[in-house]
Amino acid sequence: MKENGRTSPADLDAVLAAGLVAHLGVLVDGHPMVVPTVYGYDDRQIFLHGSVASRSLLADAEACVTITVLDGLILARSVFEHGVNYRSAMIYGVPRKVTDPDELLYGLRLLTEHVTPGQWDYARRPSKKELAATALLAIPLAEASVKISDGPPDDGDGRDAALGLWAGRLPVTATWGTPIADPLLPAGIDPPPHIADRTGRPITG
Amino acid sequence: MKENGRTSPADLDAVLAAGLVAHLGVLVDGHPMVVPTVYGYDDRQIFLHGSVASRSLLADAEACVTITVLDGLILARSVFEHGVNYRSAMIYGVPRKVTDPDELLYGLRLLTEHVTPGQWDYARRPSKKELAATALLAIPLAEASVKISDGPPDDGDGRDAALGLWAGRLPVTATWGTPIADPLLPAGIDPPPHIADRTGRPITG
Repeated sequence: MKENGRTSPADLDAVLAAGLVAHLGVLVDGHPMVVPTVYGYDDRQIFLHGSVASRSLLADAEACVTITVLDGLILARSVFEHGVNYRSAMIYGVPRKVTDPDELLYGLRLLTEHVTPGQWDYARRPSKKELAATALLAIPLAEASVKISDGPPDDGDGRDAALGLWAGRLPVTATWGTPIADPLLPAGIDPPPHIADRTGRPITG
Repeated sequence: MKENGRTSPADLDAVLAAGLVAHLGVLVDGHPMVVPTVYGYDDRQIFLHGSVASRSLLADAEACVTITVLDGLILARSVFEHGVNYRSAMIYGVPRKVTDPDELLYGLRLLTEHVTPGQWDYARRPSKKELAATALLAIPLAEASVKISDGPPDDGDGRDAALGLWAGRLPVTATWGTPIADPLLPAGIDPPPHIADRTGRPITG
């Protein structure tokens, strides 16, 4: 993929805000493993569901978390110049297992509210027992790299322009659909506005 | 994320067909690194753009490639039971750098046609010089694990059902948008049908 590096905290924040799934890369018994997971974040750290980490004792070993938002395809005159419009953030650090109940609640709230704003106040919050069964990892945002590719194809002023082929970008948009009620839900309970109002809206910022 | 393991080649093929971006996890100088990249595949192997690999001499060391398709959110009565509907494939293996020109062409064709069917015949194919400058990795599909989470929330028959909260799933759909012409494109060249006809269609199978 073609890429342009960015370094400002605002760029990192924009990618974190736009993404929904992170890919956590860690070493398990010496073997690389890449696991998808949802996340939340504040100014200093990213919080990840750590079930895999707890199974494999990953915490305290170095990790890389990558968040990628796909924005579209770059369709050039030549195959060689094809590419992807995307925004991505790579965060490097040593995951810390969150064990303090207050910080667990804090991290779970950030995670829940990042994925579904309004849901922390709507759903039943975790009990002490549930908190104890929750594996949450925190990784500092201090070491991160942001890459953004948002341009058109590169071969519009080269020799291939004479081919007369169409070239440009094909955007991709991920949108929220219509809520599907749990089959066990009694009749007469409608989705609350913070869920229902998302329908048709893009999931990425 | 809640997950159900699948083992059949058909399940792996379905995830590979539905995805567009893979996350390649490798060790670079002993540090885990997770890089997004497009891919193509056949019955035996997955092909990835290997620019990172060529920079970092990653080939011949173990890697994990993960493809994740996000299908929606599981919104339960309790925060603890929240989850994600998704399909993912994790492929483990030692990447091989493709160097034979015929295999390079074969792998690039698979990659191009996976991302944009019809484009290999439409765009100018790689020259010998471009092929020599293309870094392509192949990883066998022999060792792979597929996980699919497609169910409703789990707490519809538990104590939390009495809370009277809405619960269910919020689907996510990624769709192709309207082609955006390269600003350098002369007037009068329309996108070909294999590109224009995608508009409004879901990108995942």
